Amino acid sequence: MRMLINVPETVVDDGLRGFAAAHPELTVDVENRIVLRRDAPVAGQVALVSGGGSGHEPLHAGFVGPGMLAGACAGAIFTSPVPDQMVRAAAAVDSGAGVLFVVKNYTGDVLNFDMAAELTEDEGIQVAKVLVDDDVAVTDSLYTAGRRGTGATLFVEKIAGAAAEAGAPLERVESIARRVNARSRSFGVALSACTTPAKGSPTFELPNGELELGIGIHGEPGRERRPMMTSGEIADFAVDAVLQDLRPKGPVLALVNGMGATPLLELYGFNAEVQRVLGERGVPVARTLVGNYVTSLDMAGCSVTLCEADEDLLRLWDAPVSTPALRWGR
Amino acid sequence: MRMLINVPETVVDDGLRGFAAAHPELTVDVENRIVLRRDAPVAGQVALVSGGGSGHEPLHAGFVGPGMLAGACAGAIFTSPVPDQMVRAAAAVDSGAGVLFVVKNYTGDVLNFDMAAELTEDEGIQVAKVLVDDDVAVTDSLYTAGRRGTGATLFVEKIAGAAAEAGAPLERVESIARRVNARSRSFGVALSACTTPAKGSPTFELPNGELELGIGIHGEPGRERRPMMTSGEIADFAVDAVLQDLRPKGPVLALVNGMGATPLLELYGFNAEVQRVLGERGVPVARTLVGNYVTSLDMAGCSVTLCEADEDLLRLWDAPVSTPALRWGR
Repeated sequence: MRMLINVPETVVDDGLRGFAAAHPELTVDVENRIVLRRDAPVAGQVALVSGGGSGHEPLHAGFVGPGMLAGACAGAIFTSPVPDQMVRAAAAVDSGAGVLFVVKNYTGDVLNFDMAAELTEDEGIQVAKVLVDDDVAVTDSLYTAGRRGTGATLFVEKIAGAAAEAGAPLERVESIARRVNARSRSFGVALSACTTPAKGSPTFELPNGELELGIGIHGEPGRERRPMMTSGEIADFAVDAVLQDLRPKGPVLALVNGMGATPLLELYGFNAEVQRVLGERGVPVARTLVGNYVTSLDMAGCSVTLCEADEDLLRLWDAPVSTPALRWGR
Repeated sequence: MRMLINVPETVVDDGLRGFAAAHPELTVDVENRIVLRRDAPVAGQVALVSGGGSGHEPLHAGFVGPGMLAGACAGAIFTSPVPDQMVRAAAAVDSGAGVLFVVKNYTGDVLNFDMAAELTEDEGIQVAKVLVDDDVAVTDSLYTAGRRGTGATLFVEKIAGAAAEAGAPLERVESIARRVNARSRSFGVALSACTTPAKGSPTFELPNGELELGIGIHGEPGRERRPMMTSGEIADFAVDAVLQDLRPKGPVLALVNGMGATPLLELYGFNAEVQRVLGERGVPVARTLVGNYVTSLDMAGCSVTLCEADEDLLRLWDAPVSTPALRWGR
């Protein structure tokens, strides 16, 4: 166990306290595990609220701020937040223009956001939901019916967040979010298992010298296990898995994502291979983002997410955003 | 070996190619391993050039852009770049206002930047140098005479970079850089060793359940090895080591830095403990930055860097910056 923690029981709250200290520009309610835009509710703006189990940082709290999420709820490690958190966050950020819940497709999250939507509507707040289910590795999984939600969550939150920031009404923000999800696909690879603080040992056995193709962000099993492959071979496999399902007819937005413990140098090297494969397959790349954004604690590995993005979506992608983990200007 | 690479020989060039693809806003000369501001030379501006061994990403290439570095040179893994790279970078970015070399205190880097400074001056370019030596863990080390240069490099590059961006002359940019270094101290801790691609196995033995206090960013030995400590105990030790040497009389700028493989959730939790210790010691914190900025490949661990920052330095810290790894606006 090589964890930088006090005791497993306080990991999430300790993290939120440290996050609050580093980000005075956000409102952090440690007790309720909610992070909010300080200026929320913003008059006339639809508010995006997301959330999920902890252990995927910077997702979601790191994406709260102008141009992206209005609020995020943190659950225990790899465990959905509860409806009460979502209702609270929605009530705090709703300006009257309504709230969009961005939900990764895991059974617990889906159930809790469904219940939260009902309770929030009972309070007279307009609610829409978008389910993110971009992972092509497997249909049905340890915690999911249907495809899992992974890297596309970042695309949905950024692009729909930009539409909300620009003043689009709830229906339009929701339809953009659905469009982004429908046009996005992901595939992930683990080079090592992750270790949850409570367990203190790897969540699954991955012998040194092997990798797991199609891994989920909680270490759920993927498609197959193989002897170690080169970065180029992994890129071939992952990009082809995504393209077989996505079949883009135009340029794509690419996220080359680290699972948490893969060095940035290696991740950039992997990006070179991803770009090579996309070039060979005749897929133009409009934008590329490389970094650790949708992680799985201390897992080594990576994922590729592609989104077929028209001019409209690219303009929203390029729009200013100001959050702890994603920030760019005019 | 759990590395996401092709072969050890191409890791640095693969990384630079992938970096170039992700950052079309920068000029990347993969052959010469140089990254430059696309708009360099910027008329009237002093240009900061840094560089060092690869394996510490995002340092240094990730800090190239308006408000920070004008150029960065990448060496092989944990190996200084050569003078020719530095001379080339300096010649490419000099506007006539001169160049400041930012040099981490390792024997190879110092020698090569010294030689590069002479060669660059021979070309009629004004050159100044600042040596970064903030690590209080040890004096003299495997690769260093005197203290090692670590986290304060980010402070020097950001703050002196802001002064250069604002049009300060070389003498003033240099004196600000020296002031930042003189007022900064760091201390690092390893929870695991790092693995260089060429070696393929950990660079040193750190048994599970032990940690190394005072680690260097290449895995150089620190002060002592101990059985695993809590995040709070590590914060006490690291912050006290820094404060004993720094003795700040005013507010500090804090960098809570990950070594590469420590999850962001844990790093934020560690920040909560760092803030607690600083509070207990009566040291006010003006700004905090948390993330993986000065890394050591796949090492798990963290470091704390504090800089005693007056209003002048804080204003420069807050000034806009637009680089891959550090970006904020007005």
